[in-house]
Amino acid sequence: MLDTEQIKRFAAEFDPQPFHLDEEAAKASMFGALAASGWHTMAITMRLLVESVPLADGVIGASTEVAWPRPTRPGMALQVFSEVVDIKPSHSKPDMAIVTMRSETRDQDGEVLQVFTAKMPVFKRERAHR
Amino acid sequence: MLDTEQIKRFAAEFDPQPFHLDEEAAKASMFGALAASGWHTMAITMRLLVESVPLADGVIGASTEVAWPRPTRPGMALQVFSEVVDIKPSHSKPDMAIVTMRSETRDQDGEVLQVFTAKMPVFKRERAHR
Repeated sequence: MLDTEQIKRFAAEFDPQPFHLDEEAAKASMFGALAASGWHTMAITMRLLVESVPLADGVIGASTEVAWPRPTRPGMALQVFSEVVDIKPSHSKPDMAIVTMRSETRDQDGEVLQVFTAKMPVFKRERAHR
Repeated sequence: MLDTEQIKRFAAEFDPQPFHLDEEAAKASMFGALAASGWHTMAITMRLLVESVPLADGVIGASTEVAWPRPTRPGMALQVFSEVVDIKPSHSKPDMAIVTMRSETRDQDGEVLQVFTAKMPVFKRERAHR
């Protein structure tokens, strides 16, 4: 579970804006209450993906899109749901494809906090029976 | 300047893949040598943006795109170059516009490590002479 101290620690290092650091300042902001940096939500999402996505060469994004429909708040427990939405074989490199994966980061009630889409280079495995 | 210890510390917390954690493992990977997590490059970029972009309501991305043309390595000094590429007034909210900002994160030699594009909601300032 994400707590206030973690939110403030990440923000102090990488995204030191008042609405990520201070409850009172956050009340007066667009967020209405303390919210995690979107990059903190993304970093936690990456951790969950690395622990679960079975790509032999690693989870390496060539290009990505990230959007945050709702703020991430203290006390939320984040979960990630991913699907492969496209696999495009490379024309120039016959052993490579570009896999497009769409991942939703949701809170404990299933509300979507972040939508992350990544295009990733993936290599074919050598086949023994060739 | 980004050092090996910072790269490994971020990776251990958020992106624990061998090529971000271990020099030997990185040699055998797509990266060829130890590389920072792309999200670490993005987080450092955000820090530099927060310190320099003069948006009164904060640097808040509604939706973003991130791509990494080159890996970020230990010993690099990162710098960010940004330009506003579009300002689209909102039809539904007359005091709001969506600003599109494109930011290149470059190393000390000017090589582009990351291209980051963000669409950000920006509000008009109250004008005293109305």
